[in-house]
Amino acid sequence: MLRLASSQSDFAERLKALLAFETAQDPAVDAAVAAICDDVKARGDAAVVEYTNRFDRMHAESIADLTLSRDELKAAHERLPAALREALEAAAARVTRYHEKQRMASWSYEDEDGTLLGQQVTALDRVGIYVPGGKAAYPSSVLMNALPAKVAGVGEIIMVVPTPNGERNDLVLAAAYIAGVDKVFTAGGAQAVAALAYGTETIPQVDKITGPGNAYVAAAKRRVFGVVGIDMVAGPSEILVVCDGETDPDWIAMDLFSQAEHDEIAQAILLAPSAEFLNRVEASIAKLLPTMPRRTIIEASLGNRGALIEVADLDEACEIANYIAPEHLELSVADPDAWLPKLKHAGAIFMGRFTSESLGDYCAGPNHVLPTSRTARFASPLGVYDFQKRTSLIRVSEAGAQPLGRIASLLAHGEGLTAHARAAELRLKD
Amino acid sequence: MLRLASSQSDFAERLKALLAFETAQDPAVDAAVAAICDDVKARGDAAVVEYTNRFDRMHAESIADLTLSRDELKAAHERLPAALREALEAAAARVTRYHEKQRMASWSYEDEDGTLLGQQVTALDRVGIYVPGGKAAYPSSVLMNALPAKVAGVGEIIMVVPTPNGERNDLVLAAAYIAGVDKVFTAGGAQAVAALAYGTETIPQVDKITGPGNAYVAAAKRRVFGVVGIDMVAGPSEILVVCDGETDPDWIAMDLFSQAEHDEIAQAILLAPSAEFLNRVEASIAKLLPTMPRRTIIEASLGNRGALIEVADLDEACEIANYIAPEHLELSVADPDAWLPKLKHAGAIFMGRFTSESLGDYCAGPNHVLPTSRTARFASPLGVYDFQKRTSLIRVSEAGAQPLGRIASLLAHGEGLTAHARAAELRLKD
Repeated sequence: MLRLASSQSDFAERLKALLAFETAQDPAVDAAVAAICDDVKARGDAAVVEYTNRFDRMHAESIADLTLSRDELKAAHERLPAALREALEAAAARVTRYHEKQRMASWSYEDEDGTLLGQQVTALDRVGIYVPGGKAAYPSSVLMNALPAKVAGVGEIIMVVPTPNGERNDLVLAAAYIAGVDKVFTAGGAQAVAALAYGTETIPQVDKITGPGNAYVAAAKRRVFGVVGIDMVAGPSEILVVCDGETDPDWIAMDLFSQAEHDEIAQAILLAPSAEFLNRVEASIAKLLPTMPRRTIIEASLGNRGALIEVADLDEACEIANYIAPEHLELSVADPDAWLPKLKHAGAIFMGRFTSESLGDYCAGPNHVLPTSRTARFASPLGVYDFQKRTSLIRVSEAGAQPLGRIASLLAHGEGLTAHARAAELRLKD
Repeated sequence: MLRLASSQSDFAERLKALLAFETAQDPAVDAAVAAICDDVKARGDAAVVEYTNRFDRMHAESIADLTLSRDELKAAHERLPAALREALEAAAARVTRYHEKQRMASWSYEDEDGTLLGQQVTALDRVGIYVPGGKAAYPSSVLMNALPAKVAGVGEIIMVVPTPNGERNDLVLAAAYIAGVDKVFTAGGAQAVAALAYGTETIPQVDKITGPGNAYVAAAKRRVFGVVGIDMVAGPSEILVVCDGETDPDWIAMDLFSQAEHDEIAQAILLAPSAEFLNRVEASIAKLLPTMPRRTIIEASLGNRGALIEVADLDEACEIANYIAPEHLELSVADPDAWLPKLKHAGAIFMGRFTSESLGDYCAGPNHVLPTSRTARFASPLGVYDFQKRTSLIRVSEAGAQPLGRIASLLAHGEGLTAHARAAELRLKD
């Protein structure tokens, strides 16, 4: 695993190289996705069925074979072992409680002349949730995408999830049941994204599509952006652990593993003001790695993109954290509240030694869909606010139209827009 | 101008055709933009200077010739006629006051076991504002883009504005001065967007780029999305007027003109429950059109994409308005408050006969950057919230780590993510 120290003369350069990730879109993927989207737009259900049969090795005769009712979701929910069902329900309750605090409210105020200005908040009518199938089918992602929409008051939630070879995942379907998903189609890939964006005879057109997916899904989301809203286009998952050197090194090693086990391009970085502590974590990694079922992935990820970095002190660690703007920032220190004001850019901050990232991934309450690849500089976690939108309200009184009309008239003439000016002037009394 | 009635049997189809707008990206534009972006990324300032000289017919020798200081903005401000300067300042004051209400605040709460959950709100460090040059150089757009960033507390605001043939627009520069823009570069097109996204030797890399532009600018913004944040990719401007038939038809005609005068593909539609009123508006249009300096554009726009639509009643008008989800919705009726609850999708609602859209464009207070092309179904006006972002906070106590750890462990094992489970289990006491 790469070892760096902030005191190295080429540290800034090496850090930049470590974080670099080729986000360029693949023209071959783009072309394939464009063809699929156009085909789904033109032929609807028939195209969705054909692509699904081909890519997911299914034998659907019509879209009906790819449709799951609430009853089927309920049956999956009932099939789960009680402990797992209760864990899902407990997670859903906590996630719901947190997200209820995010709900935006309308507001307005009046000027002295009776002119009203405000902002009306409304929920989206219908959203689509993309849930990956196969090896990365995560029920927790169903909760994290559907529950904020539910809390926002979205009218209808449509989920798409591929079921390669027809294999359905009961945990995923049970999570959809708990989260209040209205309809599920067992289709994925660009064809499912296109169906949600344009609508087919059977799959309703949605207003926004959220949820992670592979390169084809990401390219399709980019492509339909504008026709519908999308959440972010996510990059590889990342964790940055800042540790004062006093946390059990086994805990830190396992936290790094829990990011690295996602896939070979995930990134796990540790900053600590002690080379000796980094050595102890390295020893823990060596000790624990052989015990991990996903050790091949973890080893590749830590080898490709991981790093243990010695810093001068925690102040410097915070500066570096702000530059990295990580998706997950673990602040494994004695007094995390003291360091919080120095941290500006991160998707989520896990404060204190007992807050392993995995608690946040499943059940602490906040969303686990977070900005990656330094986009926490400008982006936020997925939230209720992604499923609400605002409308400006302006109600100008006759008295208010006088001063405002004169200002608007001057500025509109200044911009050469005479009709704008005249529209304001017609409302003037003199 | 097209006349329709909602009672026609093919109305839904005709309305859909009326709203249809080809948003397909032009592959030739995309290819040109990709080459420019790559070149700016590789060669920095030199590439920006070359493209600017070529496309804007300039003779800059270095980036210094394309750089304006705050002093030069101040000089432009002082050169303005007093009335115009005061109008800009009055507009800026009202826009600031409205946007201050949009500022988001951090929040948190604690569970009984001391576990803290919250959301920390911070401003973006640095943003770029694209301001079109030439015929569509609008000082009001400078205010509408820069002031929300300022209110959000953005650290640095960089503006780019092309100056074809070297012609600078004092109103635009004065608006930048008033709005607190920190630096201005007189460059535009894809090269300016790429410079802001990647940074050059002289132009600082920003975290987000907002502001309208032509097809090249839009393609460049789409391309750099992910490296930086962007606002929306705007389509043609639109107004939908809903009138009860009691507003002066000259006022309505002028409100339609004030949208149509933007360009030939702008869209102006009127809904009213009276064919006779539509006739009167049509007569006003015929009467007023010859008096308008931009009549050729207005005529083309109304002819290409405008419509006067007779509806059964105002209830139906609201339903149609929700389908159209217009950028600007004028509710020119006796009691607009009564109809507001029926309206779900619009960028901004202009309520009552005295609220001409142009008052909102310049000085009422709300932003004039609004979602177009039916995207008000899922998108919001540009606002302070576009220049702030959220970070989730999770601080789990030792006591809290016990129940949460058990839930996370169950779910992580259910997903086959053993390291996630183990990270939670290590924090369990037994």
